[in-house]
Amino acid sequence: MAVLKARSVLVTGSNRGIGLELVRQLLEKSNRPERIFATCREPEGPRAQKLKDLAAKHKEVEIVQLDTAEPSSIKSAAARVSEQLKGTGLNLLINNAATLNLNTLDTETADGMAEVFKTNVIGPFVVGQAFLPLLRKASQESPQKGMSCSKAAIVNISSEGGSITNVLMWNMVQALSYRCSKAALNMLTKCQSLGYSDDKILCVALHPGWVQTDMGNAAAQAPLTVDQSVGAILNTFAHLSEKDNGTFVNWEGKAIPW
Amino acid sequence: MAVLKARSVLVTGSNRGIGLELVRQLLEKSNRPERIFATCREPEGPRAQKLKDLAAKHKEVEIVQLDTAEPSSIKSAAARVSEQLKGTGLNLLINNAATLNLNTLDTETADGMAEVFKTNVIGPFVVGQAFLPLLRKASQESPQKGMSCSKAAIVNISSEGGSITNVLMWNMVQALSYRCSKAALNMLTKCQSLGYSDDKILCVALHPGWVQTDMGNAAAQAPLTVDQSVGAILNTFAHLSEKDNGTFVNWEGKAIPW
Repeated sequence: MAVLKARSVLVTGSNRGIGLELVRQLLEKSNRPERIFATCREPEGPRAQKLKDLAAKHKEVEIVQLDTAEPSSIKSAAARVSEQLKGTGLNLLINNAATLNLNTLDTETADGMAEVFKTNVIGPFVVGQAFLPLLRKASQESPQKGMSCSKAAIVNISSEGGSITNVLMWNMVQALSYRCSKAALNMLTKCQSLGYSDDKILCVALHPGWVQTDMGNAAAQAPLTVDQSVGAILNTFAHLSEKDNGTFVNWEGKAIPW
Repeated sequence: MAVLKARSVLVTGSNRGIGLELVRQLLEKSNRPERIFATCREPEGPRAQKLKDLAAKHKEVEIVQLDTAEPSSIKSAAARVSEQLKGTGLNLLINNAATLNLNTLDTETADGMAEVFKTNVIGPFVVGQAFLPLLRKASQESPQKGMSCSKAAIVNISSEGGSITNVLMWNMVQALSYRCSKAALNMLTKCQSLGYSDDKILCVALHPGWVQTDMGNAAAQAPLTVDQSVGAILNTFAHLSEKDNGTFVNWEGKAIPW
């Protein structure tokens, strides 16, 4: 059975929802990472308390300030992580931080849309760029052939709401900008998979399911618990390989059409 | 044989390239529109001279200032077009204006990407929103059943470079932001097709081919002449119908995967 054996993992937006649960469940693994970089916008804010409690109990967790809407904050975070890794690479980068507004074709505005693109597409792009040297290092130092999340990978947390083919739940919630941003993020993922294939960095867009988080419940009660989603996601991480490079999968690893 | 019989058409970015040629060839049709609203950023600038020459010779052409990156300019343009139409609707809106930068995964920046999203996605979105009342009016006043470009339609000029499945010509030109923006524009088109189907407004994303324009030749010599591309596009406009709503087609009307 495949196992995730990443020495180091970074999760953006890790102070709540899926991000926080990813950190929590990674810590429960017997093969848990030696270093988990848990980033969030405001480590000193009240919404980071649960993450701080977790970090206080687990020496593997390092909280790092990172605002995906601020390129300078991303660069500072990359420098800090690089320092902490002491010359070793970063195995798994999880671009999880995202924003959602429920605006429709009628109510969305230019500014609202720009804001969503900034956090959901431009942020993950700049994060990918900033951490690329560490991902390359991890890939080079890994004895494994092929590609895997244990070796070197970028996982962009996308959404089936951003599947142009499926446009999941349109009748329930339009969330126009969110959908457009996730379609753009999917294209970014595909481009990263093409651009970084020689470096053997696996790039995947992943739909976590419709999950009971602040974001997931914004429109209506979501069907999947955070626990269920993240358990399945970590299992999927263990199984992703070269054949999945540049694909769009759900929490269980099943392919989703673009 | 199907014929395009739109009484009024609006083309953004119509001072050069595909936009200018669309206006030119529309004027050559025996069933030419009564009103062609040819918009561009700077009607008084040197790059609008060819369009001005064309407008001087053809009373059907009305040049309208419209900068897709400026919502206020879009709103003013919609008010002016509405006034000109004297209570009648707008049949065909062609979102053609777009920008391209050739930046790669390595060289793109947050600001560069934001700029491309602004012109290529947010612009067409705001244009669609601003002209919706006129499109609805055209749809209501049309005696035709079903959907067509003659009745009421939004055509978003996209690119196969924005097909996440195909990522056309990646090895020749990355143009990362452009690709992400066109994938987002495709999602916008799909959402518009769902949101406006009750209004019987046809919404289609169209790839004009790799055309010999300033933009098309930015990376390398393009294979298709503007004349060929636009001739085929106008023929495709004549044939698009309800079954094409929410699809992505090339200049000849052939389906492209998302």
